[in-house]
Amino acid sequence: IVRLEALLAAPPRQLIGDLMDREPPVVAPGVDQEVAAWRAVRHREAALVLVDASGRFQGVIPPDRLLAILLAEHDEDLTRIGGFMKDTAAVRTASLEPVPRRFRHRLPWLLVGLAGAFVAAGFVARFEEQLQQMLILVFFIPGIVYLADAVGTQTETVVVRGLSVGVPLRRMVARELAAGLAIGLALGMTAGPLVYLLWHDLDVALIVALSVSAACSTATLVAMLLPWLLSMSGRDPAFGSGPLATVVQDLLSILIYFGIATALM
Amino acid sequence: IVRLEALLAAPPRQLIGDLMDREPPVVAPGVDQEVAAWRAVRHREAALVLVDASGRFQGVIPPDRLLAILLAEHDEDLTRIGGFMKDTAAVRTASLEPVPRRFRHRLPWLLVGLAGAFVAAGFVARFEEQLQQMLILVFFIPGIVYLADAVGTQTETVVVRGLSVGVPLRRMVARELAAGLAIGLALGMTAGPLVYLLWHDLDVALIVALSVSAACSTATLVAMLLPWLLSMSGRDPAFGSGPLATVVQDLLSILIYFGIATALM
Repeated sequence: IVRLEALLAAPPRQLIGDLMDREPPVVAPGVDQEVAAWRAVRHREAALVLVDASGRFQGVIPPDRLLAILLAEHDEDLTRIGGFMKDTAAVRTASLEPVPRRFRHRLPWLLVGLAGAFVAAGFVARFEEQLQQMLILVFFIPGIVYLADAVGTQTETVVVRGLSVGVPLRRMVARELAAGLAIGLALGMTAGPLVYLLWHDLDVALIVALSVSAACSTATLVAMLLPWLLSMSGRDPAFGSGPLATVVQDLLSILIYFGIATALM
Repeated sequence: IVRLEALLAAPPRQLIGDLMDREPPVVAPGVDQEVAAWRAVRHREAALVLVDASGRFQGVIPPDRLLAILLAEHDEDLTRIGGFMKDTAAVRTASLEPVPRRFRHRLPWLLVGLAGAFVAAGFVARFEEQLQQMLILVFFIPGIVYLADAVGTQTETVVVRGLSVGVPLRRMVARELAAGLAIGLALGMTAGPLVYLLWHDLDVALIVALSVSAACSTATLVAMLLPWLLSMSGRDPAFGSGPLATVVQDLLSILIYFGIATALM
């Protein structure tokens, strides 16, 4: 790439080799548009050279296209996280559209969530006996569910974003899992003593500590497994974050919590 | 703006006025960088003209800077949603960084979440009596908390993103609130009959229907109020989405649910 600006500003005797970017950002057709755009930015160039499979020059992708691509990708990410239907991708439209439209775009994922809420109610109902014996267990349901979700969301953010800029999953898995385990242990070991301090119940303290650790570590695994399973079945791995992942993780956290409680009671 | 490419390719007698963009995207200093970048894209230009307060030409922002700005903003949004500390903004770093670093970057917001979990436990503990009388109420805690969060996240996504591309809050508030109310009503009116169908308890069905409606509508309000309050107090309104908003909304949902239950029992 030689910039026309540099070319025109150069003194007449300068060699063109000194003006050009000798290692221009190069992409082959088939590379994800977001990965391509990142390559341009890392090279501090505003355009990309398109080459075919054998490295022959095919053309240049101009800066205004790159800008438009990046904005579209940004919206796509946020739309997915928000759990909207795909066709609201354009933000200005989404933030100004009339009420019936908003309603239609948002309800579908929420109905999936509602179904999840009823499955969760069924899960809790199965442990009614344990709860009757130890009502105090109820106190920690929202907290455990929340913490596991928060840990899972962090992993999803790193992984989905990492994938979209071209970092392969296998380079992220081991370290993410180790981090999730460490975070789970740290949170569990903080939560346990606090429960004992506030409610003076050693059994419950132990159950909560183990459940927080287990649910948070599992959340890391689920947050990576779900995008991977989706991509294996040919779907967009990005759906592994957002509302669906939260529902799955919530159900799992409830099972882990009551499973541990039942085992220790 | 005249593109050098167009200038060089033009026949010698063409007027420069025909080549230039007569309404170039213009920004004044002090305009948010993301709003500025959007303006360029809407004009299908890859550069921006910078003017001072009185409209005089100050300079041009080149395409490579715009690209870098947009990618940084994209990362910032996702980092915030994930609840990381700010200095992990660079994605490649985040997806490849070693375990102890991951741990340090993520723990702070999770500890805020842990504190929230204990406040939630305290809230539920206050309604121990009601729960003892009506243990079935416990079944719907995870679902109600989840649904209100999901509705709130949708509003946050629209509002924070709308603000960042320059749509003023007052143009979004009324329609968002109406949409939130409609969605809350729809979900409540679906949940109520389902509860009755599955558990044959009219009181509980009514409590759940009202709570889902109230919690989901409130979630829309909170999702707009929090960014607004933060910007009033001089902080980044974007912090109103992500982990902090979820904790606040969870606590509120629990209070709404048990408040309605207590009132109707």
